[in-house]
Amino acid sequence: MKYEEIPHVTLERLALYHRTLQQLEERGFDIISSQQLSGFLNIKPEKLRRDLSYCGSFGTRRVGYPVSELKRQLGKFLGLHYHRRIGIVGAGHLGMALAIDKTFLELGFSVAALFDKNEKLIGSEIGNVKIYDFAKLESTAKRKMIEIGVIAVPKDSAQEAADALVSAGILGIWNFAPVKLFTPKNVPVLDADLSFGLRILNYYITQAE
Amino acid sequence: MKYEEIPHVTLERLALYHRTLQQLEERGFDIISSQQLSGFLNIKPEKLRRDLSYCGSFGTRRVGYPVSELKRQLGKFLGLHYHRRIGIVGAGHLGMALAIDKTFLELGFSVAALFDKNEKLIGSEIGNVKIYDFAKLESTAKRKMIEIGVIAVPKDSAQEAADALVSAGILGIWNFAPVKLFTPKNVPVLDADLSFGLRILNYYITQAE
Repeated sequence: MKYEEIPHVTLERLALYHRTLQQLEERGFDIISSQQLSGFLNIKPEKLRRDLSYCGSFGTRRVGYPVSELKRQLGKFLGLHYHRRIGIVGAGHLGMALAIDKTFLELGFSVAALFDKNEKLIGSEIGNVKIYDFAKLESTAKRKMIEIGVIAVPKDSAQEAADALVSAGILGIWNFAPVKLFTPKNVPVLDADLSFGLRILNYYITQAE
Repeated sequence: MKYEEIPHVTLERLALYHRTLQQLEERGFDIISSQQLSGFLNIKPEKLRRDLSYCGSFGTRRVGYPVSELKRQLGKFLGLHYHRRIGIVGAGHLGMALAIDKTFLELGFSVAALFDKNEKLIGSEIGNVKIYDFAKLESTAKRKMIEIGVIAVPKDSAQEAADALVSAGILGIWNFAPVKLFTPKNVPVLDADLSFGLRILNYYITQAE
């Protein structure tokens, strides 16, 4: 199945299920019924079952889904078992914040390097992540087996960062710059967008008043 | 309609439509058919029409949706016309990154203050945003008419930040700390989760290989 074939919104739900199952696992749940899970997430049971069937997962009738096993299956479907290494371009506040964020570690991913052009920053460390010279991104990223590139530079430098990451052979880019990037077809780009959360929170506020 | 009644995933789509319409407007589009919009977003036309009917918007058959008007209607449904003022608790890398992010401005929101306990930071500015003493959050937030609180502190300090924001009368919280916060029922909390993007990008990578 090509990745274009699953709508982005379905993927968002699969990611949501995965996170929820991770939380349930941490709290010691062994089994969860599709009713419980769908009630918890406010998603219709039929839709939940259909979504989960994407990754070949079917609960046992009257028993429910085994939490850890379903999480593992979903994780495998999402490719999370690869535990990929991340390189972040841009050691400004956003790059630094992402480098020390524990979410990636919890997902089994690790930040292997930050890259910047600023000579004052090159060589220093944040958390356990070292800042490397952007000019040497290609060789450094290859040596450190980086597979995911994160772009945390201003929008005028974002395409240059993307080109360098593509030259280094990375597999995909998570782009925080507010600009459309051009990459070869086999290097997917996911645009992060902080405004989404704000739009949704704002709706909740409007309804809660 | 109570905010619980629209599933979160539908809201995500409404936010997506709003952003897309904003982009189309910037590029000078006047009219877009539901076919075009649904093709562009990879969402079924029937679903798109049903989603848009939530906010009372119906395109004209054979003519399509007027881009600016639909954006305005959606924006109003999401409460974006209130142009709320934001206060960020935590002037670490994440708080700083959020304070200078232009996304909020583009949405018509503004960051009115940062709050921190670190005396070395209090009084300084980043971008045009001043850092205030967390101990005086209540009076400062009221004076600056802050309506949205963003929590960008470590998880051990997050509930304390939430309590201070609630005391200051803010309307909703966007929480970047990886912890469940407790607030009164009329103060909704939206948990930001950076791991979502990574899960989704990773799936794209797995499929693109």
